[in-house]
Amino acid sequence: MAKVTILGAGAMASAISIPLSNNGHAVNIWGTEFDRAIIDALKSGQLHPTLQVPIKGNFFYEDELEKALDSSDIVVFGVVSSGVRNLAQRIKSLLKNQTIVNVAKGFDNGQTMMEVLDSILPDLGKVTVAGPSNAKDVSKGMKTYVVFASKDKNLAAECRKVFQTKTYKVEISTDAEGVEICSSLKNVYGILIHSAKTDNERAALFSKSLAEISKFVKACGGKVKTVYGLAGVGDLYLAQWGRNGMLGKMIADGKKPSAALEELKAKNITVEGYAATKAAVELARSKSLKLPLLESLYNLLYTGCK
Amino acid sequence: MAKVTILGAGAMASAISIPLSNNGHAVNIWGTEFDRAIIDALKSGQLHPTLQVPIKGNFFYEDELEKALDSSDIVVFGVVSSGVRNLAQRIKSLLKNQTIVNVAKGFDNGQTMMEVLDSILPDLGKVTVAGPSNAKDVSKGMKTYVVFASKDKNLAAECRKVFQTKTYKVEISTDAEGVEICSSLKNVYGILIHSAKTDNERAALFSKSLAEISKFVKACGGKVKTVYGLAGVGDLYLAQWGRNGMLGKMIADGKKPSAALEELKAKNITVEGYAATKAAVELARSKSLKLPLLESLYNLLYTGCK
Repeated sequence: MAKVTILGAGAMASAISIPLSNNGHAVNIWGTEFDRAIIDALKSGQLHPTLQVPIKGNFFYEDELEKALDSSDIVVFGVVSSGVRNLAQRIKSLLKNQTIVNVAKGFDNGQTMMEVLDSILPDLGKVTVAGPSNAKDVSKGMKTYVVFASKDKNLAAECRKVFQTKTYKVEISTDAEGVEICSSLKNVYGILIHSAKTDNERAALFSKSLAEISKFVKACGGKVKTVYGLAGVGDLYLAQWGRNGMLGKMIADGKKPSAALEELKAKNITVEGYAATKAAVELARSKSLKLPLLESLYNLLYTGCK
Repeated sequence: MAKVTILGAGAMASAISIPLSNNGHAVNIWGTEFDRAIIDALKSGQLHPTLQVPIKGNFFYEDELEKALDSSDIVVFGVVSSGVRNLAQRIKSLLKNQTIVNVAKGFDNGQTMMEVLDSILPDLGKVTVAGPSNAKDVSKGMKTYVVFASKDKNLAAECRKVFQTKTYKVEISTDAEGVEICSSLKNVYGILIHSAKTDNERAALFSKSLAEISKFVKACGGKVKTVYGLAGVGDLYLAQWGRNGMLGKMIADGKKPSAALEELKAKNITVEGYAATKAAVELARSKSLKLPLLESLYNLLYTGCK
């Protein structure tokens, strides 16, 4: 039996506790300052407010980080991508030889989450989780296929043993970098695909997006094969329906991008792909990559013209 | 200016006349015995009954085949796949050095449409059209990206000159075999993907389907690259929403496949992927290919169990 601490109590972080609990592992869930209401609910035995399922484990408030990490074997990063760097710095002195499992996705200062974690916690083994996994489906035990990627294949295989259940199926990969690029770019190209006006153009853009993601992955040292697996095409297929696709569709329907973003903001809907588009363009340019679809999306979102 | 005869007056066959007319080419459209009402409408200047757009050209009934083919430079096969072999036999003696453009998709006696046409009309140059192109979008001049594939790259490029417009964009490829396999299998895997019950599983099956299609294409001498372009992933993305996906969804919702097929038949809805599944399984087995998803779909549709 392993002891796993999950950092973050949002939908995805909490959902991943379900296969762990089903396998009989001990789970600690630590919430950030934004997760206070969730931790309150879980501590008092209520359903998880977003997932609407019961969560087993011990629950910790923001100021109980040390207690939450006590004697853990595996530490899962499940906070928002912009919080990973600070949190890694903060817990650095509390970690010894734990395995890090990363669920956060996105770019931070030109680095993927695995690069951020590598730079701050260079001595710990790390595995990143990718693939099409809507948190609600995972939390309900619906069949889900994911990839655990790590430079250290054995470590990925060990983590698979801990997380895999009959419905949470884990493939392993050594292409952690490729997997992370795919996961970060899905939100960007999800906007692009749905900014098309017709079925034919959306389908063409889906295919052309994969070609650009392949170029990006290759330039970052990842494998093109990854793009055509669960972490690439699988997750792009899933992610396009979410908030990113919603922004794309509003643009397709004739709204100005700035007005669409304002409207979504007023509804408290954050479109991850918006900031990710800027980060991705900057990273692509720094590598002298020519990605016309990405550039045209950037121009559309940030200057209002194609 | 080229003279193009389109064989078949259904939605896709008629839609492809739009870029041709826009480029100023002369179009003849010949209807089969099932297209009588369409030819009646077109001859009397009405809109195309399915597409609801005007079609320019000369229109011919089933018994006017020779007249329809008179002095044509390009002959487009746009009839249903099961009719291609007979029609090719029938017009064999009427053709001299025309270029054949194939729009029909599917297997017939273990052969792709290009193989059927090659076996009957071995001396004529052939180009096959693939990629995500919903006929209604094409007929309305909405942006569409397709692939023209031929063993003879120059011939594909010549045809591109005839068909391409500002909104009907043509890529060329030499992988005619790969393109045809992709086009035929999209309907099969479209059923499979939508027979999944959740978003996560559909996304995983979309990705896993592409891996099986790649194996199939490779075994038939095609290129894996084709699977990840417009003809493969692009057209699978589009095709899944149609009748095939509808059958899949009915199964996902708990209907028995036989009952679902009966219900669709009663509504006059033909699910191309149903017959294509049997043809694909037989072809895969003849090549000793192991494709578990295809086999499980075949078992589900033809024996009622997974």
